[in-house]
Amino acid sequence: MTYGIAMLIDEGLVVTVDSRTHAGVDHVSTFRKVTFFENPGERAIFLMNSGNLSVSQSVVNLLSDGFPEPDRPQRMTAAPTMLDAAKMVGAAIREVYRVDATDLRAQGIDHSVLMILGGQIKGDRMRLFQIYSAGNFIEASPDTPYFLIGEMKYGKPIIDRVIRNSTPLNDALKCTLISMDSTMRSNVSVGLPLDVAAIRRDTFRFAVRRRIEDGDGYFDDLRRRWGEGLRSVFESMPGPTWCA
Amino acid sequence: MTYGIAMLIDEGLVVTVDSRTHAGVDHVSTFRKVTFFENPGERAIFLMNSGNLSVSQSVVNLLSDGFPEPDRPQRMTAAPTMLDAAKMVGAAIREVYRVDATDLRAQGIDHSVLMILGGQIKGDRMRLFQIYSAGNFIEASPDTPYFLIGEMKYGKPIIDRVIRNSTPLNDALKCTLISMDSTMRSNVSVGLPLDVAAIRRDTFRFAVRRRIEDGDGYFDDLRRRWGEGLRSVFESMPGPTWCA
Repeated sequence: MTYGIAMLIDEGLVVTVDSRTHAGVDHVSTFRKVTFFENPGERAIFLMNSGNLSVSQSVVNLLSDGFPEPDRPQRMTAAPTMLDAAKMVGAAIREVYRVDATDLRAQGIDHSVLMILGGQIKGDRMRLFQIYSAGNFIEASPDTPYFLIGEMKYGKPIIDRVIRNSTPLNDALKCTLISMDSTMRSNVSVGLPLDVAAIRRDTFRFAVRRRIEDGDGYFDDLRRRWGEGLRSVFESMPGPTWCA
Repeated sequence: MTYGIAMLIDEGLVVTVDSRTHAGVDHVSTFRKVTFFENPGERAIFLMNSGNLSVSQSVVNLLSDGFPEPDRPQRMTAAPTMLDAAKMVGAAIREVYRVDATDLRAQGIDHSVLMILGGQIKGDRMRLFQIYSAGNFIEASPDTPYFLIGEMKYGKPIIDRVIRNSTPLNDALKCTLISMDSTMRSNVSVGLPLDVAAIRRDTFRFAVRRRIEDGDGYFDDLRRRWGEGLRSVFESMPGPTWCA
């Protein structure tokens, strides 16, 4: 499985995703589930993918190398706006299915994907999209400033409690890591390493692109402090007085 | 949907379940999802149900009023042991399906159920079972001292962090209420009132059978303190130093 978080807040965009992939319990691997398209100072875009890995990788290849047909947008690095970029991802998903879907279905393979695209291109505003298997998409808004994919339920409560549009970028990063920790503790199909990135608004470059591996000092300290803090709050609260 | 928690710890059994039922978003109702069978000092048993409500209620009716056939166990109040009680629930589920399943399937209705049975009968040890639609069941053990049904993922992390076999009964009750709060905040299909109960080991009576309604003093205070405590721990932790 996958757990991925993307947030569009006042200060910018934050993305955190795990890297555990499995085809059956005896075939667990590590694959990067986020791709970065960056021309520093001009554009910074990420594409996070979940679902069928071969379809996702084929989509990324199309977006990186360009579509074969001359009448389609060529490459993610050349998309004029974020809306064009979202349409381009949708078109790439449809193109991969046009070629592969019949054979995948014939083998009884679930070939659905779900992608999250976020970023900013100079001259355009910062945007965050969730793109479906049919190539259609929706956009995040201040009412719902985040998208979650995969095993999202374990880590959603802390996001619902903490994240507002005004949350500082560093606090949003911290929140995604705590949310990921809760998920990894309750579901073994989500695991390290994590890929973390952030883009500050109107900078058109990644403020951070980081891989968090087992033994990462900051993440280990955060997990320990969070666990201790939760238990301390739990213990400080009175129990019910109505249980004899 | 439903969210229900049942735990078997050293001190006894704890059960907490919401009461929101819906058949489509325009038909949301309140139904008690746990039934108590108590003969104080001799037996205290609860049966929590999720899934198809008509099947669940028919099962409870059979267990309360007795099976029609003379060669089957008669009533939950007469089961000699908890294992007999679990078999009786399985037999009741099979009996309801024997009568209703064909017509339910003909209407395209999902008629699956999932039940949790816990309690203690004098002369027998305290046990906790999860019983499936096929009438088969599994039992909780010290390795996995709790069962969750329904929308369980939002509230699972706090249980995984806090609950041990040695957790005091009152702390376990407190934990189930916090877990329920996290779930209600992230999923509107789970809602008040809650039904809460606990049985101390070797007492054969309910230490508490309580309904928590909107405006309950203890629960409101707990939710407020927990939310404030979480935000306080979150704010006290340092943010990442690696994001420019």
